[in-house]
Amino acid sequence: MSIVQNMGTRARTAARQLATTSGAQKNLALNKIAEALLAGTPSLLAENAWDVEAAKKEHLPPAMLARLTLTEAKIQQMANGLKEITLQRDPVGETIEAYDRPNGLRIEKRRVPLGVVAIIFESRPNVTADAAAICLKSGNACILRGGKEALRSNLAIAKCIHEGLVAAGISADAVQLVETTDRAIIPELATAEGLIDLIIPRGGEGLIRSVVEAATIPVIKHYKGVCHVYIDKAADPDIAVKIAVSAKTDGVGVCNTEECLLVHKEIAPKVLPRIAEAFRDKNVEMRADPFSLGFLQTAKIAKDTDWGNEFLDYIIAIKQVATIDEAIAHITKYSSQHTDAIITNDLSAARKFTAEVDSSSVMINASTRFADGGEYGLGAEIGISTDKLHSRGPMGAADLTTYKYIVTGTGHIRV
Amino acid sequence: MSIVQNMGTRARTAARQLATTSGAQKNLALNKIAEALLAGTPSLLAENAWDVEAAKKEHLPPAMLARLTLTEAKIQQMANGLKEITLQRDPVGETIEAYDRPNGLRIEKRRVPLGVVAIIFESRPNVTADAAAICLKSGNACILRGGKEALRSNLAIAKCIHEGLVAAGISADAVQLVETTDRAIIPELATAEGLIDLIIPRGGEGLIRSVVEAATIPVIKHYKGVCHVYIDKAADPDIAVKIAVSAKTDGVGVCNTEECLLVHKEIAPKVLPRIAEAFRDKNVEMRADPFSLGFLQTAKIAKDTDWGNEFLDYIIAIKQVATIDEAIAHITKYSSQHTDAIITNDLSAARKFTAEVDSSSVMINASTRFADGGEYGLGAEIGISTDKLHSRGPMGAADLTTYKYIVTGTGHIRV
Repeated sequence: MSIVQNMGTRARTAARQLATTSGAQKNLALNKIAEALLAGTPSLLAENAWDVEAAKKEHLPPAMLARLTLTEAKIQQMANGLKEITLQRDPVGETIEAYDRPNGLRIEKRRVPLGVVAIIFESRPNVTADAAAICLKSGNACILRGGKEALRSNLAIAKCIHEGLVAAGISADAVQLVETTDRAIIPELATAEGLIDLIIPRGGEGLIRSVVEAATIPVIKHYKGVCHVYIDKAADPDIAVKIAVSAKTDGVGVCNTEECLLVHKEIAPKVLPRIAEAFRDKNVEMRADPFSLGFLQTAKIAKDTDWGNEFLDYIIAIKQVATIDEAIAHITKYSSQHTDAIITNDLSAARKFTAEVDSSSVMINASTRFADGGEYGLGAEIGISTDKLHSRGPMGAADLTTYKYIVTGTGHIRV
Repeated sequence: MSIVQNMGTRARTAARQLATTSGAQKNLALNKIAEALLAGTPSLLAENAWDVEAAKKEHLPPAMLARLTLTEAKIQQMANGLKEITLQRDPVGETIEAYDRPNGLRIEKRRVPLGVVAIIFESRPNVTADAAAICLKSGNACILRGGKEALRSNLAIAKCIHEGLVAAGISADAVQLVETTDRAIIPELATAEGLIDLIIPRGGEGLIRSVVEAATIPVIKHYKGVCHVYIDKAADPDIAVKIAVSAKTDGVGVCNTEECLLVHKEIAPKVLPRIAEAFRDKNVEMRADPFSLGFLQTAKIAKDTDWGNEFLDYIIAIKQVATIDEAIAHITKYSSQHTDAIITNDLSAARKFTAEVDSSSVMINASTRFADGGEYGLGAEIGISTDKLHSRGPMGAADLTTYKYIVTGTGHIRV
């Protein structure tokens, strides 16, 4: 029996138990895990220090090192996150719809867990606790595969999770960590039909694509976030400047950052000079089309490859458009369907933009940076989907559920 | 440009138009298509006759020949089906959820079409009209690939569909029929990322499996229907006999037929002799475990391969169980998670069965044969899903939609 078959079989058994575990017991487990994490802080930090030291020797980039490094505050955050999830409503058991048919049959769609969820992620060890908690809340068993550079940290966190599960009377098999760093396990996870119900790959586009190509089980993912902000001619200039600047600079390396600014030519003279000044102050490199250049001064001419590019850096593409249709056409061509925003006070423009832009989140007079499970009130986030099937946009615990039809009759047969 | 790229690109353009087409215009198209089908009856019958004649020469089995053959009544049914779909509520634009966040941001989840749906099916030409209608109603463009034995019939139906679309001002590219009979097109459809959003294969398990293995786009399917009826010790014997017999015999070759009957040992002496008599009357072959044999007389001993078998024939597997847990364990092992039923008057037993049986439809005191889009009031059915992601059970127009988050602020930025 392979590692995946072994883990999957145990996860399937645990999932059956979890599917009928009460909300109170699941919350007890979440609280016990939080306690175990806090109590285990010294050993978590010690194990993490080994990972960090090894990563430094391997010359991991500073941004990844920062994600990898645990601190007392980050462990406290993990514990708080778990406790917050206990306050959320249990999605399992919710009646999504129920009605009587003319023949007296009662039809009910009731929310149930998916079963077993596999999550593949990279360097941040706190994802181990977050993902386990969301799966547990939604009644799913999970198989977690973190980055190899975080293995010792993840093992230490998994130990706390197991303590908490067992203390609450739930099988430790409900949350399993893949201990091998062999990448060959990834396609094996992605084809574990009957054992795993869903796989969520998080990380670089190459990793995600390899999972999609190998997979015979369902995958939910987003490849990247190329988000646009369009300043309509009827925008409030102050709001436009504030959002256009903030959506780029308040968090640069994340998927909901603005990567391209589109500006209607009638408002460009009013807003672009102010935006350019703010970007210069914050050292944002501007790559603009020739029409915008005059308002931007220090900008470079954009190359074709700058449109649709996910810079994840202090760089932004800027383009003037003659009409809202041109803005929508640009977004349709280049957006990654993650999040795109319009800044306008014109109701028809807002209506047109929301109807025609086919992205998982469409913002009106708000920063693209709000596309986030926490900001949408989902409590915690297991990922963001730019797919169209099952879940779209930020995903919380309810997104890890399905439903069953429960049909009640009084001896009904078809005639 | 390949056939699939060409069709997909045109479908994508049509889908953009359809996404903002009003419900009234979509209904007009459905009515115009119904008119065209009725007006085209003579030529539909003539084209179908060619297909039927060719199929006879190829010695197609009688059941498939029957499905292939169009009649005036079947064409009338197709037209009626289209008109019924016009009476359904338009799923597009529905607000699934909407709420204000503490910071004043308004979050709305609004139902929108998926985009482009590909459907692969077999000999029944009326699926062409049904599938096109459900896709149209839900604002999706579709690419249809029917069985090669029905190609002339399907082309004739597609011609009527195009007439109707054009008469309503909708692009004919909204419904496209694959005209090649080359099977190599199937994996090409299943990997058309960016052009096709969902592929639904219907037909034999081999065909479906080949789609799943090739696919890099989402697939919704069910491989087969191995449905169980469990007669609990607290069942009403009359209801138990009626459902156990009817669920097998009122439609034998379909996916929601009972393939295995489980009977609690305490009620077996009361119900099995009556069931056996009814099955003998209807020439149903019984394959039973040794414990049931005494009550069944003419039954054969079941082989291991009879459990979990989709007979699609006048054959049923019958097994006695000592407890409800044994029944649930058998179903967990052998069910295809399509539909399983319990017959009982005991509330705890019903509750336990519905909680623990992980099938897309769970019936209480009703025949498995009700697992059907029409019977659930979905109006029309695009297929049945035994998957857990996106849609489970019978799928109607709303199952061909996704949602987008529409977030409205007043200049909100993250701080």
